[in-house]
Amino acid sequence: MNVDASRLWDRLQQLGRIGVVSASEGGGIVRPAYGSAHAEAVALVAGWMREAGLDVGVDETGNLIGSWPGDDPGRPAIGLGSHLDTVPHGGAFDGALGVLAALEAVQTMAERGERLTHPVAVLGFADEEGNNFGIGVLSAQVWIGEIAGDRFDEVTDREGRSLAAYLRSFEVPGVARVRRPSLAAYLEAHVEQGPVLDTESRPAAAVEGIVGISRATVRFEGEANHAGTTPMALRRDAACAAAELTLAVRELARAADGRAVATVGVLEIAPGATNVIPGSATMRVEIRSPDAERLASMRDAVAERARTVAERDGLTVTIEPWHTAPPVPMDAALLRATQEALVEAALPAFTMPSWAGHDAKVLARAMPVGMVFVPSVDGVSHAPGEATKREDCATAAELLYFAVRRADRALVDASGVDREHA
Amino acid sequence: MNVDASRLWDRLQQLGRIGVVSASEGGGIVRPAYGSAHAEAVALVAGWMREAGLDVGVDETGNLIGSWPGDDPGRPAIGLGSHLDTVPHGGAFDGALGVLAALEAVQTMAERGERLTHPVAVLGFADEEGNNFGIGVLSAQVWIGEIAGDRFDEVTDREGRSLAAYLRSFEVPGVARVRRPSLAAYLEAHVEQGPVLDTESRPAAAVEGIVGISRATVRFEGEANHAGTTPMALRRDAACAAAELTLAVRELARAADGRAVATVGVLEIAPGATNVIPGSATMRVEIRSPDAERLASMRDAVAERARTVAERDGLTVTIEPWHTAPPVPMDAALLRATQEALVEAALPAFTMPSWAGHDAKVLARAMPVGMVFVPSVDGVSHAPGEATKREDCATAAELLYFAVRRADRALVDASGVDREHA
Repeated sequence: MNVDASRLWDRLQQLGRIGVVSASEGGGIVRPAYGSAHAEAVALVAGWMREAGLDVGVDETGNLIGSWPGDDPGRPAIGLGSHLDTVPHGGAFDGALGVLAALEAVQTMAERGERLTHPVAVLGFADEEGNNFGIGVLSAQVWIGEIAGDRFDEVTDREGRSLAAYLRSFEVPGVARVRRPSLAAYLEAHVEQGPVLDTESRPAAAVEGIVGISRATVRFEGEANHAGTTPMALRRDAACAAAELTLAVRELARAADGRAVATVGVLEIAPGATNVIPGSATMRVEIRSPDAERLASMRDAVAERARTVAERDGLTVTIEPWHTAPPVPMDAALLRATQEALVEAALPAFTMPSWAGHDAKVLARAMPVGMVFVPSVDGVSHAPGEATKREDCATAAELLYFAVRRADRALVDASGVDREHA
Repeated sequence: MNVDASRLWDRLQQLGRIGVVSASEGGGIVRPAYGSAHAEAVALVAGWMREAGLDVGVDETGNLIGSWPGDDPGRPAIGLGSHLDTVPHGGAFDGALGVLAALEAVQTMAERGERLTHPVAVLGFADEEGNNFGIGVLSAQVWIGEIAGDRFDEVTDREGRSLAAYLRSFEVPGVARVRRPSLAAYLEAHVEQGPVLDTESRPAAAVEGIVGISRATVRFEGEANHAGTTPMALRRDAACAAAELTLAVRELARAADGRAVATVGVLEIAPGATNVIPGSATMRVEIRSPDAERLASMRDAVAERARTVAERDGLTVTIEPWHTAPPVPMDAALLRATQEALVEAALPAFTMPSWAGHDAKVLARAMPVGMVFVPSVDGVSHAPGEATKREDCATAAELLYFAVRRADRALVDASGVDREHA
């Protein structure tokens, strides 16, 4: 292996001690963006970045940036990283591995005297998990200008404290304020956060894209009635309708043969008494697929099934407008770079969708992105039990090492003719 | 008709004005036992009882008793009545009709100079709905000695106020305290509280028995997990298991062909987030049937199905011990008396189970009981919209008039040989 597996593992362990809470407090790591644990994490990683010879700074929204120069200083940087915040009671790998694997890949190149054409920016995004403001992937949205600085006063937490106020009080001693670099592309290594790689004993995957998500609230209204005196034939039982739709949602996803998942995660029935037939049921349906057409046809099938059940049983059904985040395919050249990185690392070829969102999903709206996954033990993430094996962490860095070199060349090739003759 | 339909209807209207609340407060009648509205209702009905020539009193737990002598003063009385309390936001017929129809039947006999061998006690039970103490059919349980007077301090409401304290402050001016009479039998007219008679346009029914009820809490434990990253095949979704059992419960009841109903009235899933596969589901299953064997076999079938679903999907299932109130058949002689009352009233013969509990259900543990039903418009009860037509109310009184005379003779016949030769 090219990268230093021990150094990476040691850093992961050290970073993973910041924000740890006791088991009686819920265990795991509690490191929301802009809290003191986050500041401590930024300072720690900034120190390692300096060791690696990077120029270190924090941008106006608390993102840690470690800059490594390229042969062509006029080029925008290739971003390489992930986020430094955690969910409440999360683990030491979600986000942290992406940042430290990026640093390890760059440090490896630097120590070997290797050099890319593009500069590289190792990035530690501040707020990916959305703990404070209920807005996931906030830092990436700010990065690409979708949330402008003049709105930082409007973005508030549950107590009404604004992002602007958080930023005013966020300080990392000894780390300078810097401007965000322009990015030519972005590569991210992440733990899978699901069981696919672990179950299939695969060491890593190239990510083909990030699945689209469609969500809707479905409400059945029947008639609350006496659970004794109302004959079966005269019931308009909203819980039964919801139960049928719950199972239909599962069947639709099963029929997609690995190209979709679907979940009823919220199911509330009212009035909710042992001796009263449920008169209403409210459920949240979520569908995910990497295929936009499939997502659309599954939405239609869920709605059709809901209407059929309601009509047959004499209920009404309301489906609130679906909220859909369309699938985000990886950039073709960067996907190829990550797939070839697997080959170069002598690992089995494997490409899969990402079933969860990441910083890369948002950044893809402004630049080419690519991602690699390494296994989550038992698929556990966002929990104190989150784990990724030491050798798989090293693989993440090794893949970034190969992928960023390939991405650099691909970007030069794509832009090369003009520049070479300039 | 023998009874006075106008008098009965007028009294129902008057009694139905006591405890009425405005639509903005929820509408309907709010007349919990031992409240001021209840006391007012007792005083009003007591006055009508006196008009009818009855001896009127209130027993130690607030039950209104109107005594009418029989030819044989040594015999225990035939009880005839129902309850004077209502559920919160209930209607003017549940309970009230049974009391006033009983009074109407006795007043009719008294005005005609008719006389039974047994004394008759027209009864207005205080607490049937269980509003204060969460104990349904409380007064009937006290009546037959199942809740003894020395426990009145232990029976408390949500604020800790005891039945004894309620009784100390319950006063009905001008109505004397009396001892409970011994009862030879009990007859009750009641609104069906379901849609069977109304849907089938039937004027009345003899009640064959009160259904048994089995209830259990079923809890599925699977695994809460990420709704995106967890493939369908690796899910242990507790909501899907609960949905399957909900539909199985409905299928089992439908297959009973009118001899059972079953309901999942409570269904709670956790953690209950759009993007999290439900890890646990808690549901309440209720089964009702007039047939004890069917009740038992349905309990077994529900448990079997729950285990099958859990085992197939890799979940655990816990079924808390079933609470079962066995079916209560009406006394054979009193059922015959109510069936023959229908014939005597020139109404179509019809016998059905009562799918809800009544005072008669408890009293049946200590004496022969019989019941008649008249229709609830649209099956509505325990709601402000509860209604029974004027002519159906009169039918309730007319059926009690015929049934109590037949019951009197049947009881004499059953005990007669010895007494005639005494």
